[in-house]
Amino acid sequence: MIKIGIIGLGYWGPNLVRNFSSTEGVEIKYLCDLDPKALSGWKKMHGVKLTGDYREILRDPEVDAVAIATPVSSHYALASSALSAGKHVLLEKPMASNVRECMELIESAERKNLVLQVDHTYIYTGAVRKIKELVAAGEIGDILYFDSVRVNLGLFQHDVNVVWDLAPHDLSIIDYIMDRRCVAVSGSGVANFGGGLENIAYATLYYESGAIAHLHVNWLSPVKVRRILIGGTKKMLVFDDLEPSDKLKIYDKGVDIKNGDKDGVYKALVQYRTGDMWAPKIDGAEALKYECAHFADCVKNSKRPATDGAMGLKVVALIEAINSSIASEGQKIYMEGNYI
Amino acid sequence: MIKIGIIGLGYWGPNLVRNFSSTEGVEIKYLCDLDPKALSGWKKMHGVKLTGDYREILRDPEVDAVAIATPVSSHYALASSALSAGKHVLLEKPMASNVRECMELIESAERKNLVLQVDHTYIYTGAVRKIKELVAAGEIGDILYFDSVRVNLGLFQHDVNVVWDLAPHDLSIIDYIMDRRCVAVSGSGVANFGGGLENIAYATLYYESGAIAHLHVNWLSPVKVRRILIGGTKKMLVFDDLEPSDKLKIYDKGVDIKNGDKDGVYKALVQYRTGDMWAPKIDGAEALKYECAHFADCVKNSKRPATDGAMGLKVVALIEAINSSIASEGQKIYMEGNYI
Amino acid sequence: MIKIGIIGLGYWGPNLVRNFSSTEGVEIKYLCDLDPKALSGWKKMHGVKLTGDYREILRDPEVDAVAIATPVSSHYALASSALSAGKHVLLEKPMASNVRECMELIESAERKNLVLQVDHTYIYTGAVRKIKELVAAGEIGDILYFDSVRVNLGLFQHDVNVVWDLAPHDLSIIDYIMDRRCVAVSGSGVANFGGGLENIAYATLYYESGAIAHLHVNWLSPVKVRRILIGGTKKMLVFDDLEPSDKLKIYDKGVDIKNGDKDGVYKALVQYRTGDMWAPKIDGAEALKYECAHFADCVKNSKRPATDGAMGLKVVALIEAINSSIASEGQKIYMEGNYI
Amino acid sequence: MIKIGIIGLGYWGPNLVRNFSSTEGVEIKYLCDLDPKALSGWKKMHGVKLTGDYREILRDPEVDAVAIATPVSSHYALASSALSAGKHVLLEKPMASNVRECMELIESAERKNLVLQVDHTYIYTGAVRKIKELVAAGEIGDILYFDSVRVNLGLFQHDVNVVWDLAPHDLSIIDYIMDRRCVAVSGSGVANFGGGLENIAYATLYYESGAIAHLHVNWLSPVKVRRILIGGTKKMLVFDDLEPSDKLKIYDKGVDIKNGDKDGVYKALVQYRTGDMWAPKIDGAEALKYECAHFADCVKNSKRPATDGAMGLKVVALIEAINSSIASEGQKIYMEGNYI
Repeated sequence: MIKIGIIGLGYWGPNLVRNFSSTEGVEIKYLCDLDPKALSGWKKMHGVKLTGDYREILRDPEVDAVAIATPVSSHYALASSALSAGKHVLLEKPMASNVRECMELIESAERKNLVLQVDHTYIYTGAVRKIKELVAAGEIGDILYFDSVRVNLGLFQHDVNVVWDLAPHDLSIIDYIMDRRCVAVSGSGVANFGGGLENIAYATLYYESGAIAHLHVNWLSPVKVRRILIGGTKKMLVFDDLEPSDKLKIYDKGVDIKNGDKDGVYKALVQYRTGDMWAPKIDGAEALKYECAHFADCVKNSKRPATDGAMGLKVVALIEAINSSIASEGQKIYMEGNYI
Repeated sequence: MIKIGIIGLGYWGPNLVRNFSSTEGVEIKYLCDLDPKALSGWKKMHGVKLTGDYREILRDPEVDAVAIATPVSSHYALASSALSAGKHVLLEKPMASNVRECMELIESAERKNLVLQVDHTYIYTGAVRKIKELVAAGEIGDILYFDSVRVNLGLFQHDVNVVWDLAPHDLSIIDYIMDRRCVAVSGSGVANFGGGLENIAYATLYYESGAIAHLHVNWLSPVKVRRILIGGTKKMLVFDDLEPSDKLKIYDKGVDIKNGDKDGVYKALVQYRTGDMWAPKIDGAEALKYECAHFADCVKNSKRPATDGAMGLKVVALIEAINSSIASEGQKIYMEGNYI
Repeated sequence: MIKIGIIGLGYWGPNLVRNFSSTEGVEIKYLCDLDPKALSGWKKMHGVKLTGDYREILRDPEVDAVAIATPVSSHYALASSALSAGKHVLLEKPMASNVRECMELIESAERKNLVLQVDHTYIYTGAVRKIKELVAAGEIGDILYFDSVRVNLGLFQHDVNVVWDLAPHDLSIIDYIMDRRCVAVSGSGVANFGGGLENIAYATLYYESGAIAHLHVNWLSPVKVRRILIGGTKKMLVFDDLEPSDKLKIYDKGVDIKNGDKDGVYKALVQYRTGDMWAPKIDGAEALKYECAHFADCVKNSKRPATDGAMGLKVVALIEAINSSIASEGQKIYMEGNYI
Repeated sequence: MIKIGIIGLGYWGPNLVRNFSSTEGVEIKYLCDLDPKALSGWKKMHGVKLTGDYREILRDPEVDAVAIATPVSSHYALASSALSAGKHVLLEKPMASNVRECMELIESAERKNLVLQVDHTYIYTGAVRKIKELVAAGEIGDILYFDSVRVNLGLFQHDVNVVWDLAPHDLSIIDYIMDRRCVAVSGSGVANFGGGLENIAYATLYYESGAIAHLHVNWLSPVKVRRILIGGTKKMLVFDDLEPSDKLKIYDKGVDIKNGDKDGVYKALVQYRTGDMWAPKIDGAEALKYECAHFADCVKNSKRPATDGAMGLKVVALIEAINSSIASEGQKIYMEGNYI
């Protein structure tokens, strides 16, 4: 039985409590929040200790792991202490405030042989797992482009821009399915209401393979859109997360190179072909439920999580680079270091 | 009665023939194409001379105007000769191959007091005219952003990239409704099938006002999308050209700046408000019919067309700048000269 | 403070508990279910008595009202006892198993001056309240037809057919907004899997005014549809409950009678006109929350609920008539009695 | 070479002219219309005789076949004369004004061994041919129900009701794919604007197999809907003719009968299963082009058309029965005779 403490009971923490409560092989021993009001709702929960001091959890030798769902600025300090205390860590996304912090957490976890999982929940949805499966099986062919639109009329944050808020979803998905080197990024954005925090942003990611990825994140759209297009050499797919059913559609469409006659101004070199469309059945279970079980499995069997520290780091590194590009008038930023 | 000659009977020319045939106050006197086969279909058309030599048209003192629907590479030479011969010109888009050619045509038309209209047909659709009307009436407020997605599985061109092919639509619409200075652009793109001609491209346009415009043009999408979002300080709108009805939707949505307390990590500075949505009735008549009548009116009454040489020039200048940016790894290109 | 007991904690009861918990002026004093397991989840709820015997609630003079969310077959006996004991009643839909039971409950409530509200929750949604408001204000004109499609791949019930299961929603909405005499109904249906319980059914309702209403209810549809069309002499509306936003659309469309020449086979007597479409903002709050407050208001101020016994009776009478028609090969069944 | 005369150049005739012009093995020899204006547009058409008298066509021994696109009231007289004169006939839908006329035409064609094809164009669309193919291959299983909605804001006719106008499409499709005995029909409808011609109608068709078909036809809908649902024992499909792509979707969904425990009020006897969705590529070519070639093939090779007189008769018989039911207050009308 893995004994766990959950730190941070604000917006996301209660979802962790609910899901770990029913995760086989896991027992919640502690719930922790600085705010006594956030704790009070859990008083009746059987066998769980409530505390305002996370160090109480770290000191308890019975505790195997902690799940951290606090504001980003506190991620590094908390996760670092937890790893030092020998606890496995499930850390809310984004992993930390900057690349350096992420790297230190990774090194710390590796030194201690501890699991460090970042809570990129989207990776555990049925749709993204199905996309990964199709890409891995070669169904799509080589990926040529990845295009994501993630816009709505959203709550403006006052401490981070729209890239930090919305892009982690797409960047983790890209990292999960592209599985190759991003060599550079460029971005553009605008802060329409002052304060220096962009509410609309666009980013292009250039891959070693020649593929391109592009994001549009926006807090100021009259309509909600959550749509990803992926073009491959064999097939193309659309993932529309707002569709009530048939969220994922695979199109047997593409282009064939024609090496024929080239005279005439409007003659095509490349011709398209179209075939059937197919929408595979998607596992509709709650992603977090699946993710909590995955964390337990990794802790128990010393496995590497699908959303490990390396993914968390890449996401933060890409956000930093996109924001650098936006700040430097769209200049292309080359990704460096061994973390890419 | 305005006597007109139509030059070029390939893909688009026949639409000009059909529409000018029923334009009040206009008489088609010549149809011209280098290819005899393109001419042969029109043999039975009453009172119209067929010719393979456009100079025959320019020499005829009875001809008032010409409409040119030939490949872009020939636009400058043909329009230049026509203006020199004192003929008003309706010129297919894009206006010419480069900025210099566009400027010379504009100067030539001005010197001779001739109408030079560029066939940016989209401007004459009921939907775009309604958008212009709403923006001009202040219904939308200040424009904060313009976002367009124009993608499909399309015919790859072998002489121009996807920016030259698809972006003129959006760039003319932006120019028509934004009515302010674009100071810089940046772009990214990829040519997935070699040949150096991008089949996917993204571009950001930076406006003096702080507004931003963004285009996504793509020949390799499994689904067709033709959607423009415009965010204003008062309202926001969505123009989805593929909707069979209710193409244009105006949302009484936006954000209000709150100058309240700013403590707490997730506290919003800006709050959104939502109200009704409204889809005005759109004139569904063929845009080209409206445009041909507009050309006749401008010729007859010495008016400046809605899609004049200045618009044609801006579109070409923006395409050039976007392609420069793509070629220089996304570098921001500042717009220069009096044509912006 | 109104003291209430909630009887039946199966599928729907917990929603009543949750909403009455936060209804101002209401205090839940009892929760009751025959099944001890259904009760056990509420042990920790402060100040609430749990019981397996509803008579304990009825005997308590402090209790003002009961909410009954048990199977239909028990509605009459429970509500009848509660009214006899002088308790106001909120009764789950459908009101009872047959018309006679409904009439007796209505009479009993009237004799004792007690509130008898039937839980036709749909009536309290923002969308239906807005439709009622528009119809009442004369915006739609006279209603010409009402057409509803309510289909999905649904859980087959083994004790009632699809009419009892799905039609109460539409029948209550029709009753709420049509506000006039339904003179007859006819129905058709089929039980594809034996057992005599129809899984697909259609029904037509004929109104005194000449208007027509039609329902399509179906447990065996590959796609989910929840769409109501209403045609009026002035405007027409579409209510699509599955749209994430803009659920309700009002079209300024209709037909004008032309009294002109009538010669020629294909000449129209009636011509259509089209105008703007408008989607009013809808109150998105939970309907049941609104309904619980309405019940409390009716009890406190001796008001007649929007979904009173008369509505509950009409719905049951119409279901009975539709099923009679289906059983008698689609024969038109005339509605009788003072309850219509 | 089949020599053909086309009679009737109103709304539909020109489509026949255009398509037969490019049908291999067919030569248009005559165009005929009572109205000289309808003829005048075709003066320039090479090698074609224009006439106002159809008898001129029938007298010409060189003519093999006629296509008749005149008002319904004239179908019987024209087709009858043509068959008597030994000409093959392609007859616009609906086939004739009543069952008796249809039967006489069928007998006449059979006696003379002539092709009698009814122009139920929908049958020749790629989508309907694909549905037929899937049903014939057993992919759908036994058909349990067929549900069609065909509504829009349409041109009111002054000589026929909405059933005669819109239902022939669905009735021909049902006949084509159901391929079994319809034993009875019932209908309901309303004529909102007087004149006795229904502008909204519903009809239910009962099949010998136990299957049910249902139509909703409506000239007074604010939105256009063209959607057919078909439920089978193996799979279910949706054909939405207004979708720009993926018009036809096959769902691997259905229900499985469970013979388990039956206690408890809400326990299901039947459970649903869901699987993938699949949208086959559809031949997008113009249906009428395909149909004209089919007619030529039938004439040349003495084949029976897919849309023969028997189909035309069934459609008319069903329309008559639906209208009888509407007129008799929804009474179920049993289909009789050997034509069903």
